[in-house]
Amino acid sequence: MEDWDRRYAARSERMRASEIRELLKLLDQPDIISFAGGIPDPALFPDAAFRAAYDEALRSNPGAALQYSTSEGHAPLREWLVGYMAGIGVPCTAENIAITAGSQQALDQLGKLFLSAGDTVLTTWPTYLGALQAFNAYEPRYDRLTPEQGNMTPQAYREAAAAAGGRVKLAYLTADFCNPTGETVSREGRLRVLELARELDIPVVEDAAYRALRYDGDAQPAILALDVAQTGDIERTRTIHCGSFSKTLAPGLRLGWICAASAVVRKVVLIKQAGDLHSPTINQMVMHQVAETVFAGQVEKVRTAYRARRDRMLAALARHMPPGVRWTRPEGGMFIWLTLPDTLDGARLLARSVESARVAFVPGGAFHPDGTGANTIRLSFSLAGDEAIDAGIARLAALIAEMAEGTARAA
Amino acid sequence: MEDWDRRYAARSERMRASEIRELLKLLDQPDIISFAGGIPDPALFPDAAFRAAYDEALRSNPGAALQYSTSEGHAPLREWLVGYMAGIGVPCTAENIAITAGSQQALDQLGKLFLSAGDTVLTTWPTYLGALQAFNAYEPRYDRLTPEQGNMTPQAYREAAAAAGGRVKLAYLTADFCNPTGETVSREGRLRVLELARELDIPVVEDAAYRALRYDGDAQPAILALDVAQTGDIERTRTIHCGSFSKTLAPGLRLGWICAASAVVRKVVLIKQAGDLHSPTINQMVMHQVAETVFAGQVEKVRTAYRARRDRMLAALARHMPPGVRWTRPEGGMFIWLTLPDTLDGARLLARSVESARVAFVPGGAFHPDGTGANTIRLSFSLAGDEAIDAGIARLAALIAEMAEGTARAA
Repeated sequence: MEDWDRRYAARSERMRASEIRELLKLLDQPDIISFAGGIPDPALFPDAAFRAAYDEALRSNPGAALQYSTSEGHAPLREWLVGYMAGIGVPCTAENIAITAGSQQALDQLGKLFLSAGDTVLTTWPTYLGALQAFNAYEPRYDRLTPEQGNMTPQAYREAAAAAGGRVKLAYLTADFCNPTGETVSREGRLRVLELARELDIPVVEDAAYRALRYDGDAQPAILALDVAQTGDIERTRTIHCGSFSKTLAPGLRLGWICAASAVVRKVVLIKQAGDLHSPTINQMVMHQVAETVFAGQVEKVRTAYRARRDRMLAALARHMPPGVRWTRPEGGMFIWLTLPDTLDGARLLARSVESARVAFVPGGAFHPDGTGANTIRLSFSLAGDEAIDAGIARLAALIAEMAEGTARAA
Repeated sequence: MEDWDRRYAARSERMRASEIRELLKLLDQPDIISFAGGIPDPALFPDAAFRAAYDEALRSNPGAALQYSTSEGHAPLREWLVGYMAGIGVPCTAENIAITAGSQQALDQLGKLFLSAGDTVLTTWPTYLGALQAFNAYEPRYDRLTPEQGNMTPQAYREAAAAAGGRVKLAYLTADFCNPTGETVSREGRLRVLELARELDIPVVEDAAYRALRYDGDAQPAILALDVAQTGDIERTRTIHCGSFSKTLAPGLRLGWICAASAVVRKVVLIKQAGDLHSPTINQMVMHQVAETVFAGQVEKVRTAYRARRDRMLAALARHMPPGVRWTRPEGGMFIWLTLPDTLDGARLLARSVESARVAFVPGGAFHPDGTGANTIRLSFSLAGDEAIDAGIARLAALIAEMAEGTARAA
């Protein structure tokens, strides 16, 4: 069994970053103030609408609700998404929509479709840890997109990929309220990524999980909307838009979608069929019903709640953080990103913080595929109440000040 | 975009067999008698238990039911499965159980864990088409297990794998009522597969999706139970048992499980996390509740119903089929496997049958990784009523007789 064990070890090595999640799970103790999980506030879930929809599905058509169904997804839900996508500037048909198990599964499917060992993925970073985990199963390397600074030249990306023994295969980014930084890519930045992808002839994977959660400022066009505007037809686009119901309606049903040219969608559907046959039938029927009835109001409700918490956390940071700590001011999403003095390490801060300040967060290193970012941390404001935000930031700031002073003295 | 298109084509080529499912989907017209899909009869679903369980989950704990949850699965459901596994001779703990999106997802996860391009999978064949589709994403080759005939020697499998540029990485089989043949591997055959796997130092993937559906004869021990009996402890076993609720309670919730040594389970959980985070929380809570309350009675109910249909189809086959047609007599599951005269082609028979006899089934070629089996077909007895079974088999038999006579005359 030695060979078997070695193989496990090698494969799991690539997934190591997930251990931090395990660590953080252990920390969910009552006296800990947690800014760690990027998860929605369950008090905001539209429970009654879900209860009514499950009951209705099981009363009116139990045989269909509990049966196998098609890999592309429940037709009425796909049709609803056609309307949703039209509303964000992407005219399409149901042939352009595939249902996925949250946007996380879309990333795994696209890794399976496009990546082989040694290929290059272009991505902004820090970037979504779950995307790195999904892609890592296919053993790519990463090169960095810097959309606001103009990126590198296509030739430079191509040569770096060739030198590493592969080719550039896809560009990935969360353009709206990125997990972990909360930052949004400008319209110009989006156009630069599209232009680069066209020159490299690669797809752009647009992770839009947080898109609906904008609290102020003007909405930026979806990259897929820009692509359609330029090419004139979704069938000629190269952008693959990955959406999710997890941040608006509820994550527990595990439902998201891909919107792309139908040639891409058909391939993803074959991958879905080979991977898990289809997403749960009953959940898709229910999500369609709930989306039909409460989506707009629900989005307004979560926006209002999270906007207030973001403002509260920004105010607390301004009040308490010592000089030398910088942070983002996100226009949406669930996260604020802190850059600490260079001498501080986010992982060591977490260990100390859990011990003494009793505040949890996610160290930023894991979000960087190149191993940098040790002096960064991610704070989520989606789940904590006002008092917890005030107290938690005050305690964290005091610890940071103490540790910064310690390292300054030691230097 | 040419390279992109080429890449799609290459990747989807490996999944071609799924097109036959698409074809069969189109055939679900009211006047067609379908023996095609291997799907449970929705009239047998325990609707009321599901309706009560969804209502209860959303009344008592909506915040948890609709929220993110852990990748390993809902703890009470895993504990229930510990009891189920003990009942089939596998003492274990919750650390040995991971929840999957049906047993289909387990196959994809195990392919991702064990297989690289050029590696060898050992499998009986004809075998489950969905397993070939799941594994094919990782580009293995296949070599044949023949458990009842004693298999090849470890050295012979090893040399064939090396000649193909890889190594033998896993053995896969459905030992109980295999999809598509309905056949069951004897206790001696199971022991031979285990012995071979031990000599090759590879895992045995035991697909147990149909295990609970035994209609007569003595239950054979699960391969994992034999492995535990030999090694004395699940932590020392190499068998990975993949179970499913799809054939007993309902497939529409997409829930199955892996039971194996905890070292394997931990790796599968990391793969699950990177692939879709977790299976839907609410469905796991509901499945636990329904399993607790109706599992034993439900298994008895579906066994009784499918046993009668199997008997009805076997009787109709004996009454109508012309000489030269052979078929299996399954002790469980959903399928009877027909071998036609060598001159007949199952795919051509399907095309003719849909046109004239108006009977659908699945041609057997796709279940053979080596391209043989053209003169075989799979009939499912799980969904058709008594009259449909009688009429459908009579019409199919008449067409087979007509085509056999035609090819005999032509020869």
